[in-house]
Amino acid sequence: MDKKSQNSFSLAIHGGAGGVYSKVRKQEKLIYDHLETVLEAGRTLLAKGGSALDTVNLCVRMLEDDPLFNAGCGAVANAAGRYELDASIMDGKTLQAGAVAAVVNVKNPVDLARLVMKKTPHVLLCGPGAIDFAKAQDVPTVTQRYFKSAETKVKDLVDKSSKHGTVGAVARDIKSNVAAATSTGGYDKKMPGRIGDSPLIGAGNYADNASGAISCTGIGEHFIRTGAAAYAAFLIEHDGLNAQQAAQKTINRLKEKVKADGAFILVDKDGNVAIAQNATVMRCGWIEHNGPALTTLQAPIRAQSQ
Amino acid sequence: MDKKSQNSFSLAIHGGAGGVYSKVRKQEKLIYDHLETVLEAGRTLLAKGGSALDTVNLCVRMLEDDPLFNAGCGAVANAAGRYELDASIMDGKTLQAGAVAAVVNVKNPVDLARLVMKKTPHVLLCGPGAIDFAKAQDVPTVTQRYFKSAETKVKDLVDKSSKHGTVGAVARDIKSNVAAATSTGGYDKKMPGRIGDSPLIGAGNYADNASGAISCTGIGEHFIRTGAAAYAAFLIEHDGLNAQQAAQKTINRLKEKVKADGAFILVDKDGNVAIAQNATVMRCGWIEHNGPALTTLQAPIRAQSQ
Repeated sequence: MDKKSQNSFSLAIHGGAGGVYSKVRKQEKLIYDHLETVLEAGRTLLAKGGSALDTVNLCVRMLEDDPLFNAGCGAVANAAGRYELDASIMDGKTLQAGAVAAVVNVKNPVDLARLVMKKTPHVLLCGPGAIDFAKAQDVPTVTQRYFKSAETKVKDLVDKSSKHGTVGAVARDIKSNVAAATSTGGYDKKMPGRIGDSPLIGAGNYADNASGAISCTGIGEHFIRTGAAAYAAFLIEHDGLNAQQAAQKTINRLKEKVKADGAFILVDKDGNVAIAQNATVMRCGWIEHNGPALTTLQAPIRAQSQ
Repeated sequence: MDKKSQNSFSLAIHGGAGGVYSKVRKQEKLIYDHLETVLEAGRTLLAKGGSALDTVNLCVRMLEDDPLFNAGCGAVANAAGRYELDASIMDGKTLQAGAVAAVVNVKNPVDLARLVMKKTPHVLLCGPGAIDFAKAQDVPTVTQRYFKSAETKVKDLVDKSSKHGTVGAVARDIKSNVAAATSTGGYDKKMPGRIGDSPLIGAGNYADNASGAISCTGIGEHFIRTGAAAYAAFLIEHDGLNAQQAAQKTINRLKEKVKADGAFILVDKDGNVAIAQNATVMRCGWIEHNGPALTTLQAPIRAQSQ
């Protein structure tokens, strides 16, 4: 571990990939403001010794509570006009993970995912079973109207074409533990019951102290079919690649294997941050080794694949 | 490709891992008879040029229709006394995949998974949404009593301790295409809505012509947390390992990373078959390069990990 990696923390967050760049760009300042608020909240927690796990949980909860992004209150409706949400969280220290899929009335799916991890022997609960668990755990619930009214509130603000993203956070804390969390409303007009990559460990979300933490966004089916999140982790652990090298190879492979556009954020075990993208837009921000909070709509690493 | 790999086909099937060996052994002949019937049906299809995809679909459908195994009619009940089934299928030629989770009234979940792959833009549908899709596709449905009566029928035959397995099939056809399918009732007393590794591409099921096809069984949460199926495929494609080498490394890693017992069947792109196991029992059978149908309760490759 080099000097900058010792006792430093890193954090990256995203508010989803996709959309028409010229349209999304009009909201640039708004998006950056919101992302910076989340990054600074994460920094505060990490700086006082908070865990990567608590930090990604906090950041994703904040993104879920922000109607600008397609997760939590900002979720898009499925083909039946209903809001079904997916989320997951993973602790790189223990490889424990929790996730929920197709939940309809939970305010913060990432918190429910955390409870699945903590209180059950399972990783993934879906549908009515997940909702019964939410009730038993007394998590804050909402009605479908909650999502509908958030959608109405930002309808002039948010470009509709951009509403098929995901939110996510990856962090490495000062004890060198990593964690990842991802949450989504899926994509506009998805079939009822559809589960994307966000709640699937190894597809859209992964964390392992032996490699790093990753959160993906894009059309989830492509990430599932290529095991994208686990693949990036595999490259770091198996080949000793750093975040940037693993990110580049993983995004290239997505194009090669399934001709997919997508994006993801990655923090490696040493705290290096990479953001890979071959989609048109990626709303993201990061803090690397206690550095400044940076934000962009076009990630610094872009795949050179055809 | 060596000579034996040209124009040959391979097939492996399993009826789940786990259970007390001394008890399961009493049903040895019965289990072998049932597995051989499935293997020979698979052989007939592969020998006349049938695809790996059609073959794994057929074999898993037959295993679902056999009350000896924990999938389809033989599924175990969850903690609420209900039967919720999971299944997936993946085509190594196209990387297309389909899966269903927590479906309650479908006779053959693997057929519904195939329809998800064929008729939707999605990979995974769960719960009520998946059931609506099943209705729209006119697949044979059953009531919860169907599962209950199958359970009663074999209750003297099947050791209860062994009812937490899965069924699966992997094949390579004479055109060198591979495919994998997996189906399960989950495990006894699982929470309602729990999704295991069986319907999760990259966790319990994976196929890619660049590597091979794999189907896992054991406590699914461990396979999810380590991305086990995708990992075996990575090793073959990335490091050029054969089936046996990849199987050994993957089963060792399960033990190292999450201290898990489990098992899986694997056919690599050249048609070599490996069966890896560090559970007490693995009900499985295989045909390698057009060879004889072999069956065992204790797989030939056992992990040497501590």
